[in-house]
Amino acid sequence: MAIATKGYAAQDNQSALASWNFERRDLGNHDVQLDILYCGVCHSDLHQIKDEWGPGIFPMVPGHEIVGKVSAVGSHVKKYKAGDLVGVGCLVDSCRTCENCSEGLEQFCTNGHSQTYNGLEQDKKTPTYGGYSNLIVVHEDFVLRVSEKLPLAGVAPLLCAGITTYSPLRHWKVGKGHKVAVLGLGGLGHMAVKFAVSFGAEVTMLSTSPSKEADAKRLGAHKFVLTSDANQLNEVRNYFDFIIDTVSAPHDYNTFLNLLKTNGTQICVGAPPTPAEIMGFNLILNRRSLAGSLIGGLPETQEMLDYCAEHNIVSDIELIDMKDIHAAYDRMLKGDVKYRFVIDMATL
Amino acid sequence: MAIATKGYAAQDNQSALASWNFERRDLGNHDVQLDILYCGVCHSDLHQIKDEWGPGIFPMVPGHEIVGKVSAVGSHVKKYKAGDLVGVGCLVDSCRTCENCSEGLEQFCTNGHSQTYNGLEQDKKTPTYGGYSNLIVVHEDFVLRVSEKLPLAGVAPLLCAGITTYSPLRHWKVGKGHKVAVLGLGGLGHMAVKFAVSFGAEVTMLSTSPSKEADAKRLGAHKFVLTSDANQLNEVRNYFDFIIDTVSAPHDYNTFLNLLKTNGTQICVGAPPTPAEIMGFNLILNRRSLAGSLIGGLPETQEMLDYCAEHNIVSDIELIDMKDIHAAYDRMLKGDVKYRFVIDMATL
Repeated sequence: MAIATKGYAAQDNQSALASWNFERRDLGNHDVQLDILYCGVCHSDLHQIKDEWGPGIFPMVPGHEIVGKVSAVGSHVKKYKAGDLVGVGCLVDSCRTCENCSEGLEQFCTNGHSQTYNGLEQDKKTPTYGGYSNLIVVHEDFVLRVSEKLPLAGVAPLLCAGITTYSPLRHWKVGKGHKVAVLGLGGLGHMAVKFAVSFGAEVTMLSTSPSKEADAKRLGAHKFVLTSDANQLNEVRNYFDFIIDTVSAPHDYNTFLNLLKTNGTQICVGAPPTPAEIMGFNLILNRRSLAGSLIGGLPETQEMLDYCAEHNIVSDIELIDMKDIHAAYDRMLKGDVKYRFVIDMATL
Repeated sequence: MAIATKGYAAQDNQSALASWNFERRDLGNHDVQLDILYCGVCHSDLHQIKDEWGPGIFPMVPGHEIVGKVSAVGSHVKKYKAGDLVGVGCLVDSCRTCENCSEGLEQFCTNGHSQTYNGLEQDKKTPTYGGYSNLIVVHEDFVLRVSEKLPLAGVAPLLCAGITTYSPLRHWKVGKGHKVAVLGLGGLGHMAVKFAVSFGAEVTMLSTSPSKEADAKRLGAHKFVLTSDANQLNEVRNYFDFIIDTVSAPHDYNTFLNLLKTNGTQICVGAPPTPAEIMGFNLILNRRSLAGSLIGGLPETQEMLDYCAEHNIVSDIELIDMKDIHAAYDRMLKGDVKYRFVIDMATL
């Protein structure tokens, strides 16, 4: 038994995405089936279909910023019913028993979580297929409730770009009285600005591009520092409590560490493919930290979605048709998107 | 007015240390003069007389692990009287007004602290001379009280090696229930083991040298991992809450980051002269941090000395005569010291 599904897939790491028919598993007792309405386009989609993060599982249906409407539920599902608005993010399962899963940190499941695509189910053999498709079947524990209050297409990127920036800001208890810099104004960066401003911090956008100043301020940033201007950088030496570093291209970490005041932390949510060169003295002086953070667990993702509904926060998006995905990738590579492409799945 | 002082100095970055007569300032109202009884030998003494950390101020009298007996006090000094046992560590002054000084974090004084040697007084022109000398004059606020309970020569290294390891363990609240690794068994490492054990943590020594196992366990370490053995390393993957990294030679940080469990922190108290190559994914996975820590402020240094008196903690030392300093440096370079040389200043 299986459910006929229509998607867009890469057949191998050389091919363009194209229509592909495949099957989803039939509903288990605890499964939720959703009709996908919108799916965000994450830079990691492109990394993975091109095998830039190691060999992928093909055919690959990308997409882990999924929102939709419940169309059917398994016999034991109590949390959701047909017609509910729901979301699915980067994870569709985990071991549920390890120390991290027990604490709601499924993103760090020590037995290996199941990522939404280019991953394996917990049987460690069935491939997972993502949100560039008309429907998906997911265990109810990995389905998130979405408010009807918000424009749904703008909610989709919250499932990855949103939680990836919300989680570290919450973990490090960023708020009133803190000076926060956001490095890089893209899908992640624009959400980091929105959240940090919402949490009461003084927010500074650090960018190489003067053209981003106006938009950073529109998004709520209080200050803008052009990182190519040594004078401007010098004015914020030893200044920030936190830097949210959203840049995944290689960059000079030492420059930014020196902007941190005593006990300051630079939190990387983007990771360059090559090693970063860190001078130890830049950590030792001012007792600084360089840290990393990965998406967020299921409880925190739900908390984030609820927070966004309450505070009217969504991603700034450009809605595209499925057939325009390659043009979108090309523009994404140039940073030419404000700030996330979202696929209207009705166009599949 | 000045006080004739006898010391051992390097006249330039090429010369051996040799006897040198110089002058200390006459006692100000808030100054304490102490006869130096013992001075510890820190690896940084050698780095600085060789200009390995940049151009030094010569002649240079090294030494910042100083214990002695008060011989005179200025007219307004209330805290100390002649005959008191006291210590002086890495700092002899700071601005006292900046945010960090106000919080007792003089090591991060934003206006520049005065280090005990190879530094300048707060007038920013008078050089400071360290503890390889028969006496020193220091403002009472930078003088620390030393208990009569402990063997005094073993107290000297507490002023640098001790506080450098005590401070991060306290800052990160290391204690019962934590798994702590100490990387490198030298002057800093052996103190890190003693403190972490005393604070109730499970302590593992990480070392490249199997010969260190017995001694690590004698110092209180519960486990020993030979870092050249891939199997032993693999058994402690994702295992530690904290790694205290005392190694100042270049080493592979990624190997050790991977030993940290979720939310774990590798704290560098040694800093290699060359950049460390860090893979961002090793921070992002498990939400790990790489941090640094520098000695400690005055209030915490006093707290550490009091803690050591209460818990009977001193450094393991080898007492040497002043004339044998170069032989001691040679042995220190080979790691052939258990675990700190201390100069008996009576031999000056």
